[in-house]
Amino acid sequence: MTGQTKGWIAIAGLGPGHDDLVTPEVSQVLMQATDVIGYIPYVARVAAREGLNLHPTDNRVEIDRALHALKLAATGARVVVVSSGDPGVFAMASAVFEALENHSEFAETDIRVLPGITAMLAAAAAAGAPLGHDFCAINLSDNLKPWATVEHRLRLAARADFAMAFYNPRSKSRPHQFTECLNILRQECGLDRLITFARAVSTPKQRISTVTLGEATPEMADMRTVVLVGNAATRRVGRYVYTPRSAS
Amino acid sequence: MTGQTKGWIAIAGLGPGHDDLVTPEVSQVLMQATDVIGYIPYVARVAAREGLNLHPTDNRVEIDRALHALKLAATGARVVVVSSGDPGVFAMASAVFEALENHSEFAETDIRVLPGITAMLAAAAAAGAPLGHDFCAINLSDNLKPWATVEHRLRLAARADFAMAFYNPRSKSRPHQFTECLNILRQECGLDRLITFARAVSTPKQRISTVTLGEATPEMADMRTVVLVGNAATRRVGRYVYTPRSAS
Repeated sequence: MTGQTKGWIAIAGLGPGHDDLVTPEVSQVLMQATDVIGYIPYVARVAAREGLNLHPTDNRVEIDRALHALKLAATGARVVVVSSGDPGVFAMASAVFEALENHSEFAETDIRVLPGITAMLAAAAAAGAPLGHDFCAINLSDNLKPWATVEHRLRLAARADFAMAFYNPRSKSRPHQFTECLNILRQECGLDRLITFARAVSTPKQRISTVTLGEATPEMADMRTVVLVGNAATRRVGRYVYTPRSAS
Repeated sequence: MTGQTKGWIAIAGLGPGHDDLVTPEVSQVLMQATDVIGYIPYVARVAAREGLNLHPTDNRVEIDRALHALKLAATGARVVVVSSGDPGVFAMASAVFEALENHSEFAETDIRVLPGITAMLAAAAAAGAPLGHDFCAINLSDNLKPWATVEHRLRLAARADFAMAFYNPRSKSRPHQFTECLNILRQECGLDRLITFARAVSTPKQRISTVTLGEATPEMADMRTVVLVGNAATRRVGRYVYTPRSAS
């Protein structure tokens, strides 16, 4: 018999939804886990087995969840904190490090971050290659930052001619902000700029739709949608949309 | 016996280097392929087998490679075009769509893009979570755009307080430009801003180093390095570097 295992935390990305987009690294760490922590629909993607404790929790309790992981690891548990997509992109990795910073008693915890296929790259692949040149990723939710910061970033990103990816574009509690976002983009980029709405990417409910900013309406997005905006050179070829590698 | 298979192209991302970061989707498509096309070191990662033709080619011939794929698929071949990382991020997907646009005789080709773990997200995971808030990705090579465009983007990205990821930061043929890049960042972000150099991520030669812009020197980067720059709130906690989810 070996001694008590030292606990650890792995913060793992499950990708956008389809199991074939989960990396072998993440599948292996889930086999070693004693505990899985995460938002309800993500924990539901992990297969139950003898000896594995599942801890699904509701949305917007990221710091509680992170602290729970640190406490469990301190008792010797092997904890996997699951996120959809990539855990470092608008997901649980930063929350765990915030909790670590505020609780020095857990400073020695062994923490690894295991990357995953983030939603914007799965969406871009499904549409063609709209992020094929310099681009930015913006979380449109104002839960954690003022809306004025979002507006400022949108304008500078447009002036830099970045292609753009938006996470959390629209929710029931703030339907007006995505309307504002579209207005800013029309001012800065014109009506002909291409915009792609990618919903539930890699799942049976996947729906990809590319229109111009002139045709785009706020209702085309919801919280399961990733929105991609092209740069000035982004165009269609057949059923694909792509951004050329070169730019002026 | 079935009739002749219709050819297709899958543009697949092999991830940053380690086989455990190749998605099952990509592993499966490689098993179905008759032909694999790509840059020499990426094709070298594909296991040889009976009936599989490997077509490794040198760097900077992306359009020739894309056209080769289209021609092979037109003859019924099942072609996988391999990129490292994600094929939609500074890689082969845009090149294939450019070739498609310029050769209408191949307009009916069945093309899929299969996402992969892109270098910046593997690098961020290895360092902690430096891309945990809004961020941008910039290719610092001026092979395909004027250096003035890069400078303009760097300044606007800094003023938007994006965290940043740089691909192709430095090569032997243009060592001075990364020096310029660091100078611009010091002007815009100050000397205390954190910068992470991530070399050969996920391989046995992986080396991750985080310093301040005041400490950074151009020699810390080469063509196998991805560079990550924090935003104003990025900080260290223990051996990790992370960007909090919230911003002012």
